Amino acid sequence: MLRRSPLGLINSSQCRFKVTKAPDLQEKVVNLCRHRGFVYPGSDIYGGLANSFDYGPLGVQMKKNIQDAWWRHFVQSRTDCVGLDSSVILSSRVWEASGHIGNFTDPMTVCKECNSRVRADKLIENASDVTGITEAGGLSCEDIDALIAKHELNCPSCGSKQLNKTRLFNLLFRTNMGSTDETSEWVYLRPETAQGAYINFQQVVSTMRRRLPFGIGQMGKSFRNEISPGHFLFRTREFEQLELQYFCHPNDSDTWYLIAYKFNYWVDECYSWLIKHGVKESNIKKRELAHYARATTDIEFLYPFGWSELWGIANRTDYDLRKHMDASKKDLTYQDPATKEECLPHVVEPALGTGRVLLAMLLDAYDEEEVNGRKRTVLRLHEDIAPYKFAVLPLQSKGEIVDVARTFYHALTKNASCDFDVTGSIGRRYRRQDEVGTPYCITIDFDSIEDNTVTVRDRDSMNQVRVSMDDVLTGKWKGFE
Amino acid sequence: MLRRSPLGLINSSQCRFKVTKAPDLQEKVVNLCRHRGFVYPGSDIYGGLANSFDYGPLGVQMKKNIQDAWWRHFVQSRTDCVGLDSSVILSSRVWEASGHIGNFTDPMTVCKECNSRVRADKLIENASDVTGITEAGGLSCEDIDALIAKHELNCPSCGSKQLNKTRLFNLLFRTNMGSTDETSEWVYLRPETAQGAYINFQQVVSTMRRRLPFGIGQMGKSFRNEISPGHFLFRTREFEQLELQYFCHPNDSDTWYLIAYKFNYWVDECYSWLIKHGVKESNIKKRELAHYARATTDIEFLYPFGWSELWGIANRTDYDLRKHMDASKKDLTYQDPATKEECLPHVVEPALGTGRVLLAMLLDAYDEEEVNGRKRTVLRLHEDIAPYKFAVLPLQSKGEIVDVARTFYHALTKNASCDFDVTGSIGRRYRRQDEVGTPYCITIDFDSIEDNTVTVRDRDSMNQVRVSMDDVLTGKWKGFE
Repeated sequence: MLRRSPLGLINSSQCRFKVTKAPDLQEKVVNLCRHRGFVYPGSDIYGGLANSFDYGPLGVQMKKNIQDAWWRHFVQSRTDCVGLDSSVILSSRVWEASGHIGNFTDPMTVCKECNSRVRADKLIENASDVTGITEAGGLSCEDIDALIAKHELNCPSCGSKQLNKTRLFNLLFRTNMGSTDETSEWVYLRPETAQGAYINFQQVVSTMRRRLPFGIGQMGKSFRNEISPGHFLFRTREFEQLELQYFCHPNDSDTWYLIAYKFNYWVDECYSWLIKHGVKESNIKKRELAHYARATTDIEFLYPFGWSELWGIANRTDYDLRKHMDASKKDLTYQDPATKEECLPHVVEPALGTGRVLLAMLLDAYDEEEVNGRKRTVLRLHEDIAPYKFAVLPLQSKGEIVDVARTFYHALTKNASCDFDVTGSIGRRYRRQDEVGTPYCITIDFDSIEDNTVTVRDRDSMNQVRVSMDDVLTGKWKGFE
Repeated sequence: MLRRSPLGLINSSQCRFKVTKAPDLQEKVVNLCRHRGFVYPGSDIYGGLANSFDYGPLGVQMKKNIQDAWWRHFVQSRTDCVGLDSSVILSSRVWEASGHIGNFTDPMTVCKECNSRVRADKLIENASDVTGITEAGGLSCEDIDALIAKHELNCPSCGSKQLNKTRLFNLLFRTNMGSTDETSEWVYLRPETAQGAYINFQQVVSTMRRRLPFGIGQMGKSFRNEISPGHFLFRTREFEQLELQYFCHPNDSDTWYLIAYKFNYWVDECYSWLIKHGVKESNIKKRELAHYARATTDIEFLYPFGWSELWGIANRTDYDLRKHMDASKKDLTYQDPATKEECLPHVVEPALGTGRVLLAMLLDAYDEEEVNGRKRTVLRLHEDIAPYKFAVLPLQSKGEIVDVARTFYHALTKNASCDFDVTGSIGRRYRRQDEVGTPYCITIDFDSIEDNTVTVRDRDSMNQVRVSMDDVLTGKWKGFE
């Protein structure tokens, strides 16, 4: 999620086009998130903290399902990939070497009237109809100021034309580690998990006996002091990443072919993972970012505010390993155990933001329809992603039915996240589960006590079928086809 | 993991007794962790960052297994508990209200000779043979200085008696959020996940329709600027927590009975979870901390450096909710939907450090034995905790056997973390898996191609059995009894 432009590192998360979806979709999803326990506004009882969010009971379970699905596909099931969990706080020398301390900046201007902070490059892009510029990421502060003056652009908050000179603002969060003035040191919260994989590269090769090509996958929090966070979960200062660093051999004679091959392979892997887990093909597209030094392809998603980055697949070349080798004076070259040939591997990085993909899945799953004259809200989430896979609904709120239901629930929760709901009519309970995306509602009734069968009701078709409890538990029952 | 003493909040992680295990066990486990991909020293290529660690491929998988096992038991399988994932960075008003900004301190003295930072309370405790004090957590700085002077205690690093006056050091990491001097604000990295549950308490009650008693579970990173981190994973500045806040009704007429009942219930739940997942009963004990205002029980573990805290179960009463209610002016009382009776719930908190329980499990699993005259190192980890549940070992490194093995591996990894190893003799491969705790090694041979059976070898007994692939995949084969 970090790119190099001629000006240095730039923060790539920009929203570029103003094509929009149904205008109220974002609002509806945000409302549902808040009122059904997916996402709460952060520090709400204290009036909030700018664009921070806490994941509620359903949100954390959905996030966990996304992380598990990513981990299974990109790490656990692959013989060529391993996991890693490096620290949020690394030595500050890591960020010096990687260029983040010097160059991980966004151009910012401040309004003289209302004191708003404005991403200056976005100001240019959002006025592309007059500036003619849709990508301002590579412009210098001087160029940006000249364009702002020429086109008389104004503050997005108050409309004033009195904007301060653009300057570069570093996005790293800095803190002090150690407990006395003499011994404490400045350290930084990581803005990406990737560097943790690079500095541990040699340890992974030797302790895990890895051969090229192989990947290191990481899930975890990163922090960027964004100038203008926004669009709900799309850009937050504290966020979670799902990043894979895939190390390839830079075959001298044929570098471009090999890298291109691996590169497109990963673009396709990411693309099909999204489709498989419920993102609509009509709402994603691949976009090659030609102005960067090396190949970068974004898989963009049509958010309610326009097309923007969802998954960035970048060829980071040997840039990072080389920087760390130079700075640390440690040999990070890879030696082939058979041929003894040495090389500095190139890296292809598919980087995904957990909050972004969760938002994309919610937006694509949200649906409203009329059933028997009444509105039904339903989240058509993939069954591996939905917060609850099953809801267990005893027909009565007391007695033997509840005991049987509870026993069944406990058996089910060994392998899946489930809800247990005893209150209200069955119809109401179905609707509540539809709204949070539960694929299968299981009703326990009097017959269940006698013959160990249950009624399973499908969220999408609302069809019902009678199945034995054992078949549900063992997975013999495969769901509605 | 936060306690209140007469002096305010104190950081409870202290190592109290000097009873030790086999003297080289810690060293052996640290070595195995480093060389077999469990835990690497943090920022190693840059000379390290004091007592920080990165989890390698096996460590992250083991940590994930611990988190999943905790989540399944304390959140997913319970009808009375839900999950939450609140932010690391909350409004600073949260930490003002909770008392952390004012009182989350440790007493520290600095050596005038060598500049070492010393936990002054621990200096007293570690010299308990002369001071007679095994718990110094409640002493004032003046008391501590008087004891240091009286017993002529000296710097643990250089032996000097020239120690500066003891003062209180705040353990919160502070950073600056926002991008201009005018608009930026100080924020803090959370030192515990618990406060996130308190400030979201009302949202969870209303959006999840919860009734007392119910719990909110959280997994995640916390940060404490410890004066003297140490003992490998036991005390690190960046660490992960598994915390449950269980909200109970403070029945006026019978508070103590009810709280005591819930309290002991949770102590027992935690204790049996540990035993079930492979911690040895002989190495844990319950310890009531009588000098705190309300009930607190530690489950202590016999680390190589002595008995110390593993799981803290604290009755936090209504202290935190009350503080947040006062500071935010928001009503955090709970109203019973049936009786309309209102109350401010009391909270029982079982708080576990992920790194600590991982360390405890590794220490208890480590074993060496002689087999046919040769040393065998084996990690006897519980099968739900071991990084790999299965290792798939094709008898040959090429040809049809490998293809069959690879297909089988891919099917297995849908539900379990597995290794795939083709290099070296079967005996060597078994030993490698023993050393990282893999319970089951599955050999694919020529017969496997014909009849779809495999040889499964048990890590602990080294017994072997012939089983059909299908029975392993479907879970019909239940392991070695």
